[in-house]
Amino acid sequence: MLKHISHIGIAVKDLEAGIAFYEKLGLKLEGIEEVPSQKVKVAFFPCGETRIELLCPTSEESPIAKFIEKKGEGIQHIAFAVDDIEASLKRANELGLALIDKEPRPGAHHSDIAFLHPKSALGVLIEFCQEHS
Amino acid sequence: MLKHISHIGIAVKDLEAGIAFYEKLGLKLEGIEEVPSQKVKVAFFPCGETRIELLCPTSEESPIAKFIEKKGEGIQHIAFAVDDIEASLKRANELGLALIDKEPRPGAHHSDIAFLHPKSALGVLIEFCQEHS
Repeated sequence: MLKHISHIGIAVKDLEAGIAFYEKLGLKLEGIEEVPSQKVKVAFFPCGETRIELLCPTSEESPIAKFIEKKGEGIQHIAFAVDDIEASLKRANELGLALIDKEPRPGAHHSDIAFLHPKSALGVLIEFCQEHS
Repeated sequence: MLKHISHIGIAVKDLEAGIAFYEKLGLKLEGIEEVPSQKVKVAFFPCGETRIELLCPTSEESPIAKFIEKKGEGIQHIAFAVDDIEASLKRANELGLALIDKEPRPGAHHSDIAFLHPKSALGVLIEFCQEHS
């Protein structure tokens, strides 16, 4: 069901500063993409089978702007790669886990994504992510 | 330098509740280990080349107890697997990154670990982790 860690989402105020830091650590920037549904610009750094995703708000209405306002910059979510996101959501719902998204919606990299609510996930914002090649 | 995500450390108040949640998600508990240097019990769940590590304080003096008191339960750190932790620390120091650990110390799974300080890492607590087989 959960195949691997697809990506780790990190909220940053300044995308250029974020990119400079992860380049210092030795990661290579793969690309930058705007995700209108989340009102963010995303910078991707592959690391093994996972990507570090820097999430920078493009509007004060962005969930990421609200996260930074409340908690400061830092790790915002973990995304697990799944084979069948509809099945994963159905199973999570049957198990009584609180869902933010009852249906998948478009994410970066032509993926379908859905979030579980942190309230039944011990404070962690968890994403299911089904990638399409 | 950074090979892959070794593990993601998640602070929990109640280890049993944490284990039950990640088992519901479909991950398999690999084991539980006590790490005296961090005053924590750690429960491991492999997921691809990464482990989810639930960190539960065994003392109020634990850094994890202090994290939970300040920020609540949630993701506490990301650990990058490195080949040569001494070289990684030396390079980070030369690049002007703030280090919590100037020298490696023992972590779980017979690893050597060292933390960078979140203040020069955009709010993220980053660990370097060299595993020994």
